[in-house]
Amino acid sequence: MTADAPARRPRGRPGHDRAAVLRAAIDLFIRRGYDATSISDLAAELGVTKSAVYHHFASKEALLAAALDEALSELGAAVEAAATATDGEPGAVRLRATVEAAVRILADHLPAVTLLLRVRGNSDLERSALRRRRHIDDRLAALVRQAAAEGDLRTDVEPEVISRLLFGTVNSLVDWYRPDGPLSADALAATLSSVLFDGLRPPEP
Amino acid sequence: MTADAPARRPRGRPGHDRAAVLRAAIDLFIRRGYDATSISDLAAELGVTKSAVYHHFASKEALLAAALDEALSELGAAVEAAATATDGEPGAVRLRATVEAAVRILADHLPAVTLLLRVRGNSDLERSALRRRRHIDDRLAALVRQAAAEGDLRTDVEPEVISRLLFGTVNSLVDWYRPDGPLSADALAATLSSVLFDGLRPPEP
Repeated sequence: MTADAPARRPRGRPGHDRAAVLRAAIDLFIRRGYDATSISDLAAELGVTKSAVYHHFASKEALLAAALDEALSELGAAVEAAATATDGEPGAVRLRATVEAAVRILADHLPAVTLLLRVRGNSDLERSALRRRRHIDDRLAALVRQAAAEGDLRTDVEPEVISRLLFGTVNSLVDWYRPDGPLSADALAATLSSVLFDGLRPPEP
Repeated sequence: MTADAPARRPRGRPGHDRAAVLRAAIDLFIRRGYDATSISDLAAELGVTKSAVYHHFASKEALLAAALDEALSELGAAVEAAATATDGEPGAVRLRATVEAAVRILADHLPAVTLLLRVRGNSDLERSALRRRRHIDDRLAALVRQAAAEGDLRTDVEPEVISRLLFGTVNSLVDWYRPDGPLSADALAATLSSVLFDGLRPPEP
């Protein structure tokens, strides 16, 4: 074993690390679907026994709960921090800051957020996650209404439709953004917010 | 039976109508997932026997094939028609026309397009659908590059990223657009294209 080996996280032994078990579970849930994935599949993927998985998580649902909580806690905290940082500023400024904060979390926690966005409300756990997600969406929608009321958004599109387009554009990032690609999370957030607010046209000369 | 009854399509007998069988199958595939849906489920949903379903479709995969073909044929034809109608015009004009045509198809064939967008390439049929979808995406991406080369798109975002944001925003419409809501397909297309190109800001006074 060389000195840098531990940093590479040896394959076949991550079952001993709670975070690694959760990462592998999220990846499997995304690739095969939550319903189609079993604790046996996960143990096989990690190269550990089922009881090594159960050492960290009591059930498959506990894994999903941890994943959804990661996404929702991070998103909630980021939206909260953006609100605090822009307290008293115009709605449009607060909205942009909040959208950019959400995009950065999406980029930094891509697998957990991907899973969150696939939740359809098929269990109490999923319905609870949807309620927390709606609470975050409601805060953004309120900022859209504030910005519209302050005259900082176009008036020919209903604030509700603006919110939907905004959520849709942000959420669809999970379909193509790759953290190991050329675009950093910060650049992604700045690009998306600028395209949304200023459009795709070149600036007037 | 009153004179207008046939127009209402009586529940319990749509198994006699190929289009109605396909509609019900697409709805089930979307609600429960393709893998989790059986021909028995579909027959039960329609209130007919399995053989009534098999009278129209040889297999579950034939139903998926018909659904994906509906979405891809309509999208392909609309993109083709937009290209013909704007032949010789600047790339930005052609791009807008093509995006708007795609949005109208998405709105008018929402269930089939929703199913298409969930395809991940898990079978030869799905891989073939992904190739056809990529062909359509490539035509839009070429128009983005043309518009960028002609100076009609902002230069601080790579054309590839512009294409991704554009596809993402269009595709995410399936998550919220409801054909029976207040926004017509034409209004949706005009709104989305205007927001994408001009942004959310109010016009300069």
